Amino acid sequence: MKDTKMAPPKHIAIILFPGFQLLDITGPLDVLNILSRSTTLRLSILASTLDPVSTSLPLQTPYLATLKPSTPPNSDFGQAIVPTHTFANAPDDIEVLIIPGGFGSRAEENVDPIVTFIREYYPKLTYLLTVCTGSAILAKSGVLDGRRATSNKKAFTWVKQQNEKVDWVAKARWVVDGNVWTSSGVAAGIDMMYAWVEEVWGVEVAEELADSSEYERNRDSAGDRFAERWGTV
Amino acid sequence: MKDTKMAPPKHIAIILFPGFQLLDITGPLDVLNILSRSTTLRLSILASTLDPVSTSLPLQTPYLATLKPSTPPNSDFGQAIVPTHTFANAPDDIEVLIIPGGFGSRAEENVDPIVTFIREYYPKLTYLLTVCTGSAILAKSGVLDGRRATSNKKAFTWVKQQNEKVDWVAKARWVVDGNVWTSSGVAAGIDMMYAWVEEVWGVEVAEELADSSEYERNRDSAGDRFAERWGTV
Repeated sequence: MKDTKMAPPKHIAIILFPGFQLLDITGPLDVLNILSRSTTLRLSILASTLDPVSTSLPLQTPYLATLKPSTPPNSDFGQAIVPTHTFANAPDDIEVLIIPGGFGSRAEENVDPIVTFIREYYPKLTYLLTVCTGSAILAKSGVLDGRRATSNKKAFTWVKQQNEKVDWVAKARWVVDGNVWTSSGVAAGIDMMYAWVEEVWGVEVAEELADSSEYERNRDSAGDRFAERWGTV
Repeated sequence: MKDTKMAPPKHIAIILFPGFQLLDITGPLDVLNILSRSTTLRLSILASTLDPVSTSLPLQTPYLATLKPSTPPNSDFGQAIVPTHTFANAPDDIEVLIIPGGFGSRAEENVDPIVTFIREYYPKLTYLLTVCTGSAILAKSGVLDGRRATSNKKAFTWVKQQNEKVDWVAKARWVVDGNVWTSSGVAAGIDMMYAWVEEVWGVEVAEELADSSEYERNRDSAGDRFAERWGTV
């Protein structure tokens, strides 16, 4: 732990919803999976119900049809992760919450219960991290009002429309504002997670984890080739 | 599709076992998740039973205690993915099989049924890909005998001991030999997957997918800083 006397957090939770982007959450989680072999950590996986939550969305989902008119009608490709708790029965000692993005972040029926949960739970958290369009969900809760934050660059125009009181940063791999960390799209969440581990457990731990995963970190939070690629700057 | 008249594969399967490394399989899968929105793809998730398969292993697992004496007894940190088929009831038209690694690849009770399945199924496959110590599992099937292959660099000594008839490549991000692709540890699987997508669907598709995921590819299959880092060369 760097420059602070707080004990490192032990209880981490993630939120899942139908149509979450797999790597948004599994990239950061796998860093913590390896850390949990040498450091005591606990994970809670939260969702609306205890049913497995799939990355894929029903093809008849109206907003999906609008967004992805070219989706082949016969793709059947998804993975489902099993929650450990519902929002209604979430443990009361969660210290760190991680929220992924994905096309499902555009569906009110997914987002509304998450927003309600965040509004109630945020004051208890030590850290809140979002990946990709997870920051659009967080923006709807009001927690980002007046804060700097970033998001997926391909979806940036839509994200900004979700809450104009947020100081959206168009070019950043990730952004830290207080105890809220937001990353750019998908793979950027992995770089944010290593930076966060470095902040909490120190640089040696972060480097050991990245080398164990044979991951080449992008260490510059302001470096963001994809801002130009997707026209956000 | 490059330099061949074969139709691109449509049916991809992955294998899960207790103690699989999450990013080994979700990194490559999420590339395909995005591809499946524009290209018809089908995914089967194979395991010994239809019960959800967890990344975490019981702490009393004997080989785990040997490998990780420092594991804190009270870490409770894992994620479970839901299979779609058992090995016994696998679809008969799988074209591409992806096998992850992880500490669970060291347990005979995990590996034996996978080895049996591979021996029977390999002749029907168009491609077989492994990530990390997934190549140690594949090595036990005999499919890698006389072939070039690589694996996780931190675990390389153990991997080589699993089958000395394999031409193990100590320094490589990934290796291609015929229709068998093997990658180095964990995150290397993502780079291998983009290279494979490039091989099958072309460079424009691969680049579009990587940019959409905001992923900075490592494009050199021979570039491998982690070989030195973990002393395999």
